[in-house]
Amino acid sequence: MKDKQNKEITNRDVDFARWYTDVVKAAHLASYSNTKGCIVIEPNGYAIWEKMQSILDSKFKETGHVNVSMPLLIPENLLRKEGELVKGFAPEVAWVTSGGDKKLDERLCIRPTSETLFSDYFASNVSSYRDLPKLYNQWCNVLRWEKETRPFLRSREFLWQEGHTIHETKEEAEAETLSMLNIYNNFFHDYLAIPSIVGKKTEKEKFAGAEYTYTVESLMYNGVALQSGTSHYFGQKFSKAYDIKYLNRENKFDYPYQTSWGVSTRMIGALIMVHSDDYGLVLPPKIAPKKVVIIPIGNDLEILSLANDYLDKLKKEGIEAYIDNSDKSPGYKFADAEVNGIPVRIEIGKRDLENNMITLVRRDTREKMQVFTNTDIIHDVKILLEDIQRDMYDRALRRREEMTYTVTDLEEFETIMNSHPGFVKAMWCGNAECEEKIKEIRGTKSRCIPFTDEKISDKCVVCGKKADTLVIWGIQY
Amino acid sequence: MKDKQNKEITNRDVDFARWYTDVVKAAHLASYSNTKGCIVIEPNGYAIWEKMQSILDSKFKETGHVNVSMPLLIPENLLRKEGELVKGFAPEVAWVTSGGDKKLDERLCIRPTSETLFSDYFASNVSSYRDLPKLYNQWCNVLRWEKETRPFLRSREFLWQEGHTIHETKEEAEAETLSMLNIYNNFFHDYLAIPSIVGKKTEKEKFAGAEYTYTVESLMYNGVALQSGTSHYFGQKFSKAYDIKYLNRENKFDYPYQTSWGVSTRMIGALIMVHSDDYGLVLPPKIAPKKVVIIPIGNDLEILSLANDYLDKLKKEGIEAYIDNSDKSPGYKFADAEVNGIPVRIEIGKRDLENNMITLVRRDTREKMQVFTNTDIIHDVKILLEDIQRDMYDRALRRREEMTYTVTDLEEFETIMNSHPGFVKAMWCGNAECEEKIKEIRGTKSRCIPFTDEKISDKCVVCGKKADTLVIWGIQY
Repeated sequence: MKDKQNKEITNRDVDFARWYTDVVKAAHLASYSNTKGCIVIEPNGYAIWEKMQSILDSKFKETGHVNVSMPLLIPENLLRKEGELVKGFAPEVAWVTSGGDKKLDERLCIRPTSETLFSDYFASNVSSYRDLPKLYNQWCNVLRWEKETRPFLRSREFLWQEGHTIHETKEEAEAETLSMLNIYNNFFHDYLAIPSIVGKKTEKEKFAGAEYTYTVESLMYNGVALQSGTSHYFGQKFSKAYDIKYLNRENKFDYPYQTSWGVSTRMIGALIMVHSDDYGLVLPPKIAPKKVVIIPIGNDLEILSLANDYLDKLKKEGIEAYIDNSDKSPGYKFADAEVNGIPVRIEIGKRDLENNMITLVRRDTREKMQVFTNTDIIHDVKILLEDIQRDMYDRALRRREEMTYTVTDLEEFETIMNSHPGFVKAMWCGNAECEEKIKEIRGTKSRCIPFTDEKISDKCVVCGKKADTLVIWGIQY
Repeated sequence: MKDKQNKEITNRDVDFARWYTDVVKAAHLASYSNTKGCIVIEPNGYAIWEKMQSILDSKFKETGHVNVSMPLLIPENLLRKEGELVKGFAPEVAWVTSGGDKKLDERLCIRPTSETLFSDYFASNVSSYRDLPKLYNQWCNVLRWEKETRPFLRSREFLWQEGHTIHETKEEAEAETLSMLNIYNNFFHDYLAIPSIVGKKTEKEKFAGAEYTYTVESLMYNGVALQSGTSHYFGQKFSKAYDIKYLNRENKFDYPYQTSWGVSTRMIGALIMVHSDDYGLVLPPKIAPKKVVIIPIGNDLEILSLANDYLDKLKKEGIEAYIDNSDKSPGYKFADAEVNGIPVRIEIGKRDLENNMITLVRRDTREKMQVFTNTDIIHDVKILLEDIQRDMYDRALRRREEMTYTVTDLEEFETIMNSHPGFVKAMWCGNAECEEKIKEIRGTKSRCIPFTDEKISDKCVVCGKKADTLVIWGIQY
């Protein structure tokens, strides 16, 4: 059943890690580079990133944010101004020690994140409450010196956006933190067809330097969790450390309240690991850079003219489509469209056409449908794209629900994580030692404390003491 | 005449360099950062860059190019594979020597440009003529350890796009080199309203490692030239150095022909230095992120409703507009619109409105026009935007023509450059020593050899020997 392009993809249920890298390679999403731990994002992968950028960017702008560009390099003394952030990031930054073949007086680190730079900028550019809020974002590259790397999921350099805002009041900043989390969560649901969950990180898992961190967590096909986006509330920590002082409405000096939030090319990894299969990439139509491929079978003039007719009509409807008129065999073209995750394929063949039929194939289920040419094919395609988007979400949701376990017993917790991991709901007393204990189960970490009143018992799953907090736990990438 | 926002702008004719940095600051385009030689591109500056990106990116895509992302860091041995490139760039790169607080076995440089990375990628991803051409581009940051820096014109880190293509034949690659030059040149003419000139660089001034370099050169208000974009033809130099071998149509191993081309945030500097004035930024409408500002004078309900009506109508026409309804004085708002370079201002005042009039103000000439409210104001604004775009180009062209001199005598050359510099057309024998000699005149360099048969004499302006080549010379940024 498999053609050249996808026959080299490992079976997903046999070796998930190899399957993942096989799909990345076969769909030409990324390639390893000779810069250790860094990837080349190839055209197919980058086009997905551009689609993600354009959707998110317009949502950021609709909510009043503007884009800026901060420097790539951070002087060491600037990085060291906020203690917790340094502790969190210092072990994983890259240092520039010479420039223009001269040794530098002060080392510069390549930004692992830009709280320091934004804070420093705000400090010299905000002086009055009239300057607030500042709602800034940047799309850029960052670098973290990871030991183990994997395309999109964890690489030394990655692309992301980082929003950084400062506000007059705590309430406003907290509302921003939550509102950006919701933008991310909606993006996962509405575009990526990923039924992510949201909540608050525990103290141990929050971002270095944040007062608290909200997170979007997704569950991959193999039951491993992926932190997919975060939104941090800093209170006045950074504004005090970096001396972002301003004159408030009472004409007194005050420090603004700060947030930051980010998502990265890691989302491409999530897309693959939630939706793709043994035939290659499967993309939700709303995020697919190309939604429809038209494959003429043979060089018959009638076939080619119908193909062009469909292409024109699809384009007029704003549906990204293309004709595969390469000199490859039809079988090759079908497999190519599959491995690259084109959501809908239109096959136009001579015999079919004699019966006034064409074939529509949906990528997600690989289901074939014969359709009469005298019906409104474009309308059919539109409906099909919507169906695929909805069905992909529903399947992912069903899977997530099947893989979400409610546990009141530590042994059961262990059994689940060792046999068929997923999200585990269990009560927690709030003690960091109990959290540490759970880490012994295949490195399981708290994913988040969901925004819910759900209680499944009144005892901590580890120590048995009184517990008010429901935590969702999981193995993580 | 000047208000708070623009009163701190130095007179352009008194001190051009200070005027430039004053405009950058007053229009909130960029700000100095605490990372030496690197700037923060602020929202107003970044919005111009986004506009440039979106126009150019669609032109690249229309011509078959796709975007990718290459690593930021280049291992030293990879950089050193092509000798001339290394010689050109090694003195101005920044070196990463430790990562995660461990000393690295091999230094990594921050990309000053990415020929090496693209070539390395092509080497492992191209094997047959069927894989050609590759028409790649990336939007990214690069770093060059400049000693003297200036916002947008020359900074250690800057943003740019770099296209990198490989082709089966010399002819195809050379056509690409020229075609990308034309895309740049048209962009300067049609959008930036800058009458740039194009041509070939001399051997001395070409890109390190290129067989030849085409260039877009613009003339600033003060007569100084700015290299504004380049397109390089590499022949097989890099493909041989990096071993990009492929099987050609005769089933023999061959090396592809390569190009690269780029423009950067330096274009923002060009926009400022060609068009702006003592009142701040002046932007050609086609590149202005916000084209129209509506300023209601007073809080009269009729005024506000008319302002909203205009805003809706402009938006419907796809014209980016906004209402300035801050609590500032009208005078402050007018000056604010001026300093920020909003091409058209609509003032709606009570007294005017009683006479069924409003006022339109064009930023470029600061001319005021009273218009009856019962005419089609939106149509008037559209025409005005077109007029401004055309007039700005025409004025810049006239200035360039006035500042372009034809010279056959070295003394005259010197007099011009010392009193009122500009583009100087003079004949050149082709000898590098003569070129070097001209550099003694205030550092004047050859800008380009234009694509023309024009000959103004048959003698080299320096040595008096036979000369076939017309060169355009200039002082440069």
